Amino acid sequence: MSEQQHSAEHIREWVSEIHELLERQRLVEQLVAREDAADERSLIVENMVHKQHLVALSAKLEKIHPADVARILEMLPRKDRLIVWDLVKSDMDGEVLLETSDAVRESLIEAMDTHELVAATEQLDTDEIADLAPDLPDEAVQGIYKTLNPEEREQLRLALSYPENTVGARMDFEMVNVREDVSVEVVLRYLRRLRVLPDHTDQLFVVDRDERLRGVLPLNTLLVSQPEDDVGSIMLASPKHFTADGKLLDAAEAFERYDLITAPVVDESGFVLGRLTVDAMVDFIKERQELEQLSQGGLREEEDIFAPLSNSLKNRAPWLGVNLVTALIASSVISMFEGTISQLVALAALMPIVAGMGGNVGNQTITMIVRALANNPLSSTDVRNLYLKEVSLALINGVMWGAALAVITFIMYKDLPLGVVMMLAVTLNFVLAALLAVTIPVMRARMGRDPALGSSVMITAITDSGGFFIFLGLASLFLLH
Amino acid sequence: MSEQQHSAEHIREWVSEIHELLERQRLVEQLVAREDAADERSLIVENMVHKQHLVALSAKLEKIHPADVARILEMLPRKDRLIVWDLVKSDMDGEVLLETSDAVRESLIEAMDTHELVAATEQLDTDEIADLAPDLPDEAVQGIYKTLNPEEREQLRLALSYPENTVGARMDFEMVNVREDVSVEVVLRYLRRLRVLPDHTDQLFVVDRDERLRGVLPLNTLLVSQPEDDVGSIMLASPKHFTADGKLLDAAEAFERYDLITAPVVDESGFVLGRLTVDAMVDFIKERQELEQLSQGGLREEEDIFAPLSNSLKNRAPWLGVNLVTALIASSVISMFEGTISQLVALAALMPIVAGMGGNVGNQTITMIVRALANNPLSSTDVRNLYLKEVSLALINGVMWGAALAVITFIMYKDLPLGVVMMLAVTLNFVLAALLAVTIPVMRARMGRDPALGSSVMITAITDSGGFFIFLGLASLFLLH
Repeated sequence: MSEQQHSAEHIREWVSEIHELLERQRLVEQLVAREDAADERSLIVENMVHKQHLVALSAKLEKIHPADVARILEMLPRKDRLIVWDLVKSDMDGEVLLETSDAVRESLIEAMDTHELVAATEQLDTDEIADLAPDLPDEAVQGIYKTLNPEEREQLRLALSYPENTVGARMDFEMVNVREDVSVEVVLRYLRRLRVLPDHTDQLFVVDRDERLRGVLPLNTLLVSQPEDDVGSIMLASPKHFTADGKLLDAAEAFERYDLITAPVVDESGFVLGRLTVDAMVDFIKERQELEQLSQGGLREEEDIFAPLSNSLKNRAPWLGVNLVTALIASSVISMFEGTISQLVALAALMPIVAGMGGNVGNQTITMIVRALANNPLSSTDVRNLYLKEVSLALINGVMWGAALAVITFIMYKDLPLGVVMMLAVTLNFVLAALLAVTIPVMRARMGRDPALGSSVMITAITDSGGFFIFLGLASLFLLH
Repeated sequence: MSEQQHSAEHIREWVSEIHELLERQRLVEQLVAREDAADERSLIVENMVHKQHLVALSAKLEKIHPADVARILEMLPRKDRLIVWDLVKSDMDGEVLLETSDAVRESLIEAMDTHELVAATEQLDTDEIADLAPDLPDEAVQGIYKTLNPEEREQLRLALSYPENTVGARMDFEMVNVREDVSVEVVLRYLRRLRVLPDHTDQLFVVDRDERLRGVLPLNTLLVSQPEDDVGSIMLASPKHFTADGKLLDAAEAFERYDLITAPVVDESGFVLGRLTVDAMVDFIKERQELEQLSQGGLREEEDIFAPLSNSLKNRAPWLGVNLVTALIASSVISMFEGTISQLVALAALMPIVAGMGGNVGNQTITMIVRALANNPLSSTDVRNLYLKEVSLALINGVMWGAALAVITFIMYKDLPLGVVMMLAVTLNFVLAALLAVTIPVMRARMGRDPALGSSVMITAITDSGGFFIFLGLASLFLLH
């Protein structure tokens, strides 16, 4: 019964209605075309039907939240998407663009000319324009720049000057600053005169004459204070705040840890530049984790499922290329042992088990270490203990699963030494996996790199080649005569 | 310069200080024990040193935010963790428990008796108690229940009655309700009398005589309204709200989409039960995505990196078991072709390439489909188009990478037919991967299951066995005499 549940259903309904409208129209167009394309009457019919449908659609779209319009556009195939996009009222364009995923945004921007793009950003705040700017053609950015007043230009310049993963890149400039020597009553009167407060305002920023941060005044405190109280006496004097060139990831974690809604952003001398809001942090957290998931799945970035083939090819090629190289390395390890395999073909059937299970052990360990490193730095004692623990685990798991595999191998091939080699190889590959699954992320973190990036690909490549080498090597040492 | 950056450094410093303190103490204890354990003087020295260190630590901990204490505890090995945990002031215990990860929380709760657990929850709200309750022993829950007043008992009962993934399970009960026929002035006076507003209050809930939701009054609107305005005339009449038995995931998405801070939770007749807050939604989003990442890495749940071996073994065993079965299936496919391999050993070296690259293609496609399904339901037209697109992509990629592999194979083995078989097998396995990577998540979603769960394991198993079968099958058809 809730709004949201309605919304989710509604969106589905809207999309199928839109589908139907566009299908019906195409049908009419086809009929008209088949009978007599030049016939004036059919042309009129076509136009009428067309207009009627588009008017109905346009009316529908006007009542929908921009975030939902964005979702509908993402759910439509490209051709329909552009028809619908044309119908979206231009004062909503900018908001919708902000809400769409990168891949879909690109397709929408491609369909707009400079004039439309400039118009679309008219309703947006400077921080929102800054978010869109990297995706816009240069001409549009210049056009937008001309529509801004000097203060907004300075804000846009500032927002664009910070690298993508810094606090400055995601701050906005809508805040209410007050002085500490005024009373609650004065503040309340001041707010009333503003008529509207920025979204998400949960606190006012208290600044001195030079606009330097002195504290914050939560609205919750303001509302329960006496009219004659001074701002200075009720404000929080050392609030959580961030510097514009600080890491966005640290800020997002602080928002999560301390349950913040907004926080002031200052420069190195304490001058208040803007603020961070929780909704920007939520978006950032989601984007980051989505990117990680995509790269784990072997994709470079999110794909518009209706995008042309060529885009998808480009997105997927890099990891396939990496995979080709690692697969060739593993293959060349095997071909070193072709003589061994030709003497005992069972080895060919068993070697993928050693490699595959080693990969699983390596991925388990590396996932765990990467997660631990994301939350806490590890001391050298911690690392020593981790090696000890992970290698012990690998040994126990190796002997346990190795023994099971030895039994299965013996049952299948009636060859006891083969079973023993199997068990030895599984155990050794597990230990190799554990050692490198600790070493790789710890080393990457020490060198200041992201420990997560490509970790799964790397450990899998090592356990594949390593597993083949250990298993076939042991086999040629102990099983051949 | 920001607070947060200070915090992160501070935490690291604190942890190493704590390490040092505890190390020094252990050293003294050892010295004392070595000289003469029974000697009364050494006993006094030991006690003194011990007390001195603990007092210093305790004083330090008192000044730290509960969320940071939780982080410090997570960074300490078990033995040190429990020493430090003992020193945390009992009025902070509950907050700290709320902030720790499940794995670490378990180790802390184990170290507490019923009396301590009941005391720990004294400072918590009922919704927070409800969060902890599943992890507490029954006796502690009963003890806590006795300390609550009837209203709180009813709230706890209510919160515990909703399944884990529903809105009701994460709502809290701290809200301020007002009537629509009162004036802004009356509301402001009422708020002032409350002295303190619930955390994150960004809007008041407007209810009728039966406590049914009529609208919401954002503080931002309240603050800019005239004292004589009626609540009814300035409130939002149809606010976003959720039903207690609605899906938490839908609510979290709505919070993200519509940038909500708080929202009312109602029962089926519109009676206001509680509210959702953005910080609870952020926690939920993070937990969910972490769980997904862990399961992709082959882990069941988050591990405390200092946990005893037995816990880790239990966490990792299930996926290793699944992996054992899929590896054995792939192995038995290979052993069907032992005759073929014994005639042409190069096949053993090449087959993992076919299987591995197929797995990569399958994982790329399935990741993309799972992500698309998470955002939008797919119509049957969409699915048809997706099959067409993914299979085309697989064909193009298969021919492209297959041709590259054919050339490499030819250079390595001087065997043209082998190269052709390689190319054919890669292409076919890519197509198989694409077909099933679309089918599996779409079918799971149609059956109402989570399309993500185990998707990577399943597609990899199929491309392994399928790849071996296709490559070795083609080889026995075309390469053997």
